[in-house]
Amino acid sequence: MAATKPENLTLVVHGPGDLRLENYPIPEPGPNGDRVAIEPGAPRETDEFCKIGRYNLSPSIFFCATPPDDGNLCRFYKHNADFCYKLPDNVTFEEGALIEPLSVGIYACRRAGVTLGHRVLVCGAGPIGMVTLLVAKAMGAAQVVVTDLSASRLSRATEAGADFIIQISKESPQEVAKKVEGLLGCKPEVTIECTGAESAIQTGIYATRSGGTLVLVGMGPEMVSVPLVHAAIREVDIKGVFRYCNTWPMAIAMLASKSVNVKSLVTHRFPLEKALEAFETSKKGLGLKVMLKCDPSDQNL
Amino acid sequence: MAATKPENLTLVVHGPGDLRLENYPIPEPGPNGDRVAIEPGAPRETDEFCKIGRYNLSPSIFFCATPPDDGNLCRFYKHNADFCYKLPDNVTFEEGALIEPLSVGIYACRRAGVTLGHRVLVCGAGPIGMVTLLVAKAMGAAQVVVTDLSASRLSRATEAGADFIIQISKESPQEVAKKVEGLLGCKPEVTIECTGAESAIQTGIYATRSGGTLVLVGMGPEMVSVPLVHAAIREVDIKGVFRYCNTWPMAIAMLASKSVNVKSLVTHRFPLEKALEAFETSKKGLGLKVMLKCDPSDQNL
Amino acid sequence: MAATKPENLTLVVHGPGDLRLENYPIPEPGPNGDRVAIEPGAPRETDEFCKIGRYNLSPSIFFCATPPDDGNLCRFYKHNADFCYKLPDNVTFEEGALIEPLSVGIYACRRAGVTLGHRVLVCGAGPIGMVTLLVAKAMGAAQVVVTDLSASRLSRATEAGADFIIQISKESPQEVAKKVEGLLGCKPEVTIECTGAESAIQTGIYATRSGGTLVLVGMGPEMVSVPLVHAAIREVDIKGVFRYCNTWPMAIAMLASKSVNVKSLVTHRFPLEKALEAFETSKKGLGLKVMLKCDPSDQNL
Amino acid sequence: MAATKPENLTLVVHGPGDLRLENYPIPEPGPNGDRVAIEPGAPRETDEFCKIGRYNLSPSIFFCATPPDDGNLCRFYKHNADFCYKLPDNVTFEEGALIEPLSVGIYACRRAGVTLGHRVLVCGAGPIGMVTLLVAKAMGAAQVVVTDLSASRLSRATEAGADFIIQISKESPQEVAKKVEGLLGCKPEVTIECTGAESAIQTGIYATRSGGTLVLVGMGPEMVSVPLVHAAIREVDIKGVFRYCNTWPMAIAMLASKSVNVKSLVTHRFPLEKALEAFETSKKGLGLKVMLKCDPSDQNL
Repeated sequence: MAATKPENLTLVVHGPGDLRLENYPIPEPGPNGDRVAIEPGAPRETDEFCKIGRYNLSPSIFFCATPPDDGNLCRFYKHNADFCYKLPDNVTFEEGALIEPLSVGIYACRRAGVTLGHRVLVCGAGPIGMVTLLVAKAMGAAQVVVTDLSASRLSRATEAGADFIIQISKESPQEVAKKVEGLLGCKPEVTIECTGAESAIQTGIYATRSGGTLVLVGMGPEMVSVPLVHAAIREVDIKGVFRYCNTWPMAIAMLASKSVNVKSLVTHRFPLEKALEAFETSKKGLGLKVMLKCDPSDQNL
Repeated sequence: MAATKPENLTLVVHGPGDLRLENYPIPEPGPNGDRVAIEPGAPRETDEFCKIGRYNLSPSIFFCATPPDDGNLCRFYKHNADFCYKLPDNVTFEEGALIEPLSVGIYACRRAGVTLGHRVLVCGAGPIGMVTLLVAKAMGAAQVVVTDLSASRLSRATEAGADFIIQISKESPQEVAKKVEGLLGCKPEVTIECTGAESAIQTGIYATRSGGTLVLVGMGPEMVSVPLVHAAIREVDIKGVFRYCNTWPMAIAMLASKSVNVKSLVTHRFPLEKALEAFETSKKGLGLKVMLKCDPSDQNL
Repeated sequence: MAATKPENLTLVVHGPGDLRLENYPIPEPGPNGDRVAIEPGAPRETDEFCKIGRYNLSPSIFFCATPPDDGNLCRFYKHNADFCYKLPDNVTFEEGALIEPLSVGIYACRRAGVTLGHRVLVCGAGPIGMVTLLVAKAMGAAQVVVTDLSASRLSRATEAGADFIIQISKESPQEVAKKVEGLLGCKPEVTIECTGAESAIQTGIYATRSGGTLVLVGMGPEMVSVPLVHAAIREVDIKGVFRYCNTWPMAIAMLASKSVNVKSLVTHRFPLEKALEAFETSKKGLGLKVMLKCDPSDQNL
Repeated sequence: MAATKPENLTLVVHGPGDLRLENYPIPEPGPNGDRVAIEPGAPRETDEFCKIGRYNLSPSIFFCATPPDDGNLCRFYKHNADFCYKLPDNVTFEEGALIEPLSVGIYACRRAGVTLGHRVLVCGAGPIGMVTLLVAKAMGAAQVVVTDLSASRLSRATEAGADFIIQISKESPQEVAKKVEGLLGCKPEVTIECTGAESAIQTGIYATRSGGTLVLVGMGPEMVSVPLVHAAIREVDIKGVFRYCNTWPMAIAMLASKSVNVKSLVTHRFPLEKALEAFETSKKGLGLKVMLKCDPSDQNL
């Protein structure tokens, strides 16, 4: 019956770990809208960072789902039209939902300057490491080595196109770096660190070729102990990333041209009604990407 | 008999159109050498251009096959060891011989800044246009449009991965530019002009997106009439290329990783003994890349 | 008397050459405003160009004084707060009014990549050529050559810091290029063309060092005949500019640090009431920069 | 008498701290030589690093004065002609001898991307900090803050053009960063760390503006504890330098154009005969740059 039908089913964060599904009013749409992908971060002011094309660094940024915002795990959501991107007909909603994680990989690879023929080390085979791998290959990287602690994650990396994998157990960062060089026949031009672990950052410094780039995507502890001088005198640049910027159009073009197969990233699918179950699955680390389907008509789980 | 067997069969240029096969002495090799690919341009001095990494611009450059040099269409050739690159076992000699044309495409795409998700217009479907197309796709270009006068060349472009083709007949440059935008749904970020024709340069200026890049690979007449102000006020940068630099390692890595299929470029194969016939074939424009096999043991024609 | 006192004296364009001083209402200010310099171009949408930091290329841009806008030659003007920049106390309103022409020079030099030790050729010693000269020196250019037809303009260039001047009469572009090389002892890394004349563009192509950059600031005819292949095979990049972007903070910092003396640019000063006379002076080409003082309390003419 | 006159007086390192003046034979010159400045690092092979314009990273580099080489503190010295640069007539030998330290500053500022209008923090007012300050101003930096422990060094920095100085005593890195922001009115785009101290590296991370660059010139301990995540999420790039490359022509152009006053760097002068005394002075830290005059005819001490 109409009265009991959810109008705008929404997942709301009431506190750490306290997620509840609630009925929210449907927001008034502005003049346009279409079949779109939403870039969650949109600056509220055109400040110096926006003006130079690095709007992700703007302190004025509104980021959907950063408290106190409830995010857009809901059926109806209203967003700044400049940060909504029309999806081509041949890109599905599920692919559209993967633009966000893909953007992390695109932005990391772009900051690293990955290009044709590069050798790339990716530390970590979790969701971020996986999209980074996919994007690096799509940018023409000749060979990608992926490291992780987990054999099952690494076997997924191989399926997704990793040329070499290294399962880390007790090796020192220098030893891992040596293994990487042995496998590739040379040091990689680029390392993208997706774990945040101090030892992996150290590995990145030792492993990267002189004149190359180490990109830090993983978020680690406030203070880390690292051989910075080893990077400095070999001119290995260390760059971080804060979310992403200018990735949506590129990601959509990639998806439309089928140059990257992102479907393999999705290991679980849940309807919005089962959002809490989905979060539990994700928390347990049982899969890679757990997908919530917010559109009741798109429920091919 | 040993006395009559060619020691170092060499194709020698005696004058314009006057090519002769002659027996040359075998040069003394230096201490190393291996199974290598040769980069033909090697600077003789470490001048300002070499020091900044643009050795192709050095006036001191020695370029193999630029008169008075006889080139290396011969069985034995001696070259600066710093410009010989070891071929991996999984790269054939024939693939090795394609590094040179591939380098033209790599260098043009690099100067253009082609990257993931780009839309690219390639003017001309001759050998240079074809390698440019292959490289642009390998660098992650989302969509490539190729133009040419010839339907048969364009159908080869489609086979090699072009997303769209335009057969030029009597359209004005502005009309071609409009067609390109129509096919892509937007103007391309990059145009790579591989014909040298004045009309194609004009097309490149009209077609390229504001803030994009037009790379001139084709060599046209000394003076051309072009709407330069149209490029200037839309900040379409115009860049030329002189041969290539820093492409061999990248090309070898690409071939080793099988990320680009260059075999399709070779339409004819001749043994060195039939070099004159091969040049005739090439002159008639009957194929794309006419391959000369200098190693008598590698004669799979 | 208060009733007859102009409330918001404004110079209004009624048609080509038809400028009239009128009384306009004073606009309601927004919440802030301060002692500010106004960047006249402000995008109305955050489109792809804005997002990558090139908002001057946005087709959505609002540019103050581009018809049908009346511009800001008035006592009170309302503008997008994000494009108003607070002036430090040690920067006068007159210096503030020079940020706009200075921005043209900053943007041209930035697009050219002018840096420490560069040799720079500036074609044209009009207002744009002069600010380009000032900025190039402020960026550390070692030597700047300025060309012009007029001896008096060139003598002003010398006063402003030009190391060499060339008065053009009947020399061919190649001859001018040779003179430039003779004076500097080498070809300049950068040429900034500020006239729009076909011959000066040709000079820029011949004069610039291989691997260097030619920036086109001057606006010339729709079609020009140029030796493009000469630029292409020497990899002289040709870049245009459309107004400027991201220059205001830099220009204000320059003025505040007194690292550039822009006062010499102002050759005439008029109060707003004499705006028509000022435009006549400018049209006759009698001076360099004709300054209109819109603030009645700042009338040191 | 001729027989006892030193032919090629040379300072020779026999072991740590064991420097002796000896008579060496005069080397045979090659075909050219002139009045030149010598770049001490010259690669022995044209490897991948040389080819991309970063020859300082080449493992094949010969660096004059790196043991077992005796260096060039001698009257006659033979060097790779490609790395000798003709001095213009208006550049003295003493200025020529300052190209080397100046190169460190040029290279650091270039890696940092210092340009017009930048705010720059320089940590350390020793010789490297001082040349960095001079070069940053010559590149158009609007304001430079210099920090050091020593008041006398800082007062020299002020004389050399520092806009602000901070004498460090017991402040935490965060507190120093806050002082820097207070003095400049904003965070600096660039920090150049010239001390190697862990606390100064931390200061650089906290002080630099989001999206800016921290260059490490100082050589510190193998392992340092730093808030790397603080740099990463604000996209403060961390770059090191290894000596320099492509700085000699720029430094010579700077000296010839008198755009930087390097003479103030020299606080002591000794003839070659008093080399050991000069080294003692330098070791005691009594001055900034201690100059050895190797040419007996240039003894204006």
